Amino acid sequence: MSIPSFSDVLAAHERIRPYIHRTPVLTSRVIDELAGAELFFKCENFQKAGAFKARGASNAVFGLSDEQASRGVATHSSGNHGTCLSYAAGRRGIACTVVMPRTAPQAKKDAVQGYGGKVVECEPSTSSREAVFAEVVAETGAEFVHPYNDARVIAGQGTCSKELIEQVDGLDAVVAPIGGGGMVSGTCLTLSTVAPGVEIYAAEPEQADDAYRSFKAGHIIADDAPNTVADGLKVPLKELTWHFVSNHVTDILTASEAEIVEAMKLIWKRMKIVMEPSSAVPLAIVLKNRDVFAGKRVGIIITGGNVDLDKLPWQ
Amino acid sequence: MSIPSFSDVLAAHERIRPYIHRTPVLTSRVIDELAGAELFFKCENFQKAGAFKARGASNAVFGLSDEQASRGVATHSSGNHGTCLSYAAGRRGIACTVVMPRTAPQAKKDAVQGYGGKVVECEPSTSSREAVFAEVVAETGAEFVHPYNDARVIAGQGTCSKELIEQVDGLDAVVAPIGGGGMVSGTCLTLSTVAPGVEIYAAEPEQADDAYRSFKAGHIIADDAPNTVADGLKVPLKELTWHFVSNHVTDILTASEAEIVEAMKLIWKRMKIVMEPSSAVPLAIVLKNRDVFAGKRVGIIITGGNVDLDKLPWQ
Repeated sequence: MSIPSFSDVLAAHERIRPYIHRTPVLTSRVIDELAGAELFFKCENFQKAGAFKARGASNAVFGLSDEQASRGVATHSSGNHGTCLSYAAGRRGIACTVVMPRTAPQAKKDAVQGYGGKVVECEPSTSSREAVFAEVVAETGAEFVHPYNDARVIAGQGTCSKELIEQVDGLDAVVAPIGGGGMVSGTCLTLSTVAPGVEIYAAEPEQADDAYRSFKAGHIIADDAPNTVADGLKVPLKELTWHFVSNHVTDILTASEAEIVEAMKLIWKRMKIVMEPSSAVPLAIVLKNRDVFAGKRVGIIITGGNVDLDKLPWQ
Repeated sequence: MSIPSFSDVLAAHERIRPYIHRTPVLTSRVIDELAGAELFFKCENFQKAGAFKARGASNAVFGLSDEQASRGVATHSSGNHGTCLSYAAGRRGIACTVVMPRTAPQAKKDAVQGYGGKVVECEPSTSSREAVFAEVVAETGAEFVHPYNDARVIAGQGTCSKELIEQVDGLDAVVAPIGGGGMVSGTCLTLSTVAPGVEIYAAEPEQADDAYRSFKAGHIIADDAPNTVADGLKVPLKELTWHFVSNHVTDILTASEAEIVEAMKLIWKRMKIVMEPSSAVPLAIVLKNRDVFAGKRVGIIITGGNVDLDKLPWQ
């Protein structure tokens, strides 16, 4: 298991700079009053391809040798990693194959294809996804870029909190959603080096709380195909992300489906930005845990904006 | 009829600076490709109270003498002007009464009250609105701040295109939605002085095309209670806005309801911002009139973001 270092984050930031946005940090007086805290929203919904995963995917794709790149890249993804790998591969001009659950939002399938990637569908379970993916790699010989259990990807995701720390002084805590743990791991990797005093909270849906239960149990617990409106957060931790989560995360807090949707709608209404349900889990846990966050300066990672506008969760 | 000058715009910008945002200008590579033009979106959906009307309302409210202010302010509005006058009055700590159609989105009524203003309902017609309003003014003695036929309001709206010209070099044209003509008049007032070579286009719904027909006829034609998804654009021109529209507007172009909704959805999906149907009319007319806009650098005024999330027009 190759564990990335902060020097890998610095190298990643240089490598991917031409292909990503330095996303803005937004604030809302009204939401601060509701939370009783100062919240700083790092808006990766404005990132290339609409999600932070453009960072890790670009770092993986542009780190390949020409010989590796010539065989293309492949991955399995519940959505944004597939879209972002397709984006990065398109920028380099190489092939990309993405295995996605047939139940993934059509908007995300369209997005992969819109950047030139090929979509291969599987059943909406981790086991089916990994089986179908093995066939794809056997056929193409493509370089596997895992959505999160990959040192190159985690180093790329670490550039997000590196920017956040540069953009906002005196943060007490950072809250990021947790699915497989790629963003949280990148956040741990960066903050443990540049801002070790900053607390790191992971936010997870109650209905997909395998990371929460893993954290409490002290070992990885994986669910097969959990169900939540936060469709980017259904995947389990793997050994590399578990390393960071178990060593550096302050706590993992969970929110109900209703709390997630309420937080999402609040952000849309007050901040006038389009972001996806997964990105609302951090605000949901901040609003329900005033004892933890009141009076603090808190960074919130808005991880993506690729929502199906025809299937909004409050309808 | 008191016609504002550009010096009034400069004075307005100084007066309202503490109470408004200098809103960002966003771009989209994908939308530029669809339009065949370079589009620069001036995002007043991020403005205080969610709309450009915070500019004109703040200029009117903070320009009042203490004696005038003591009696409060009042207006009639299909939505955003009422919200924004309530916001500005709240910042000055004076009373505000807003006459609104009973059919206006609940989100807009809530917004007026959320800033401390009082809502008085009327029927959804210009005639009913003006009758009910006369009663309110007789009772309160409040200062009438018309949504657009007011020199103070037009001078305030003129600060938006003043910022846009400072933010974007070499614009060939600016496109703004037209209802009563306040934003378009402010745009004419500013651009005719600081950038007289820039074309000014007004964008209007086909189903509320009274400004279009007025422009072609050479005199004001008013509809009573037209119906369009662009609910901010149902009101008619008045003598002051007609002065600017008839003297400075290059052309008025119209879009169908379907074209407006498609443009709105495109902006939400690609730019990840929440904005209202009225704000989508400019992009709709740019996309359907390539002969007019292709190859140009075009400023687009996104006028507001106060949409009822429970009643999106594509549902």
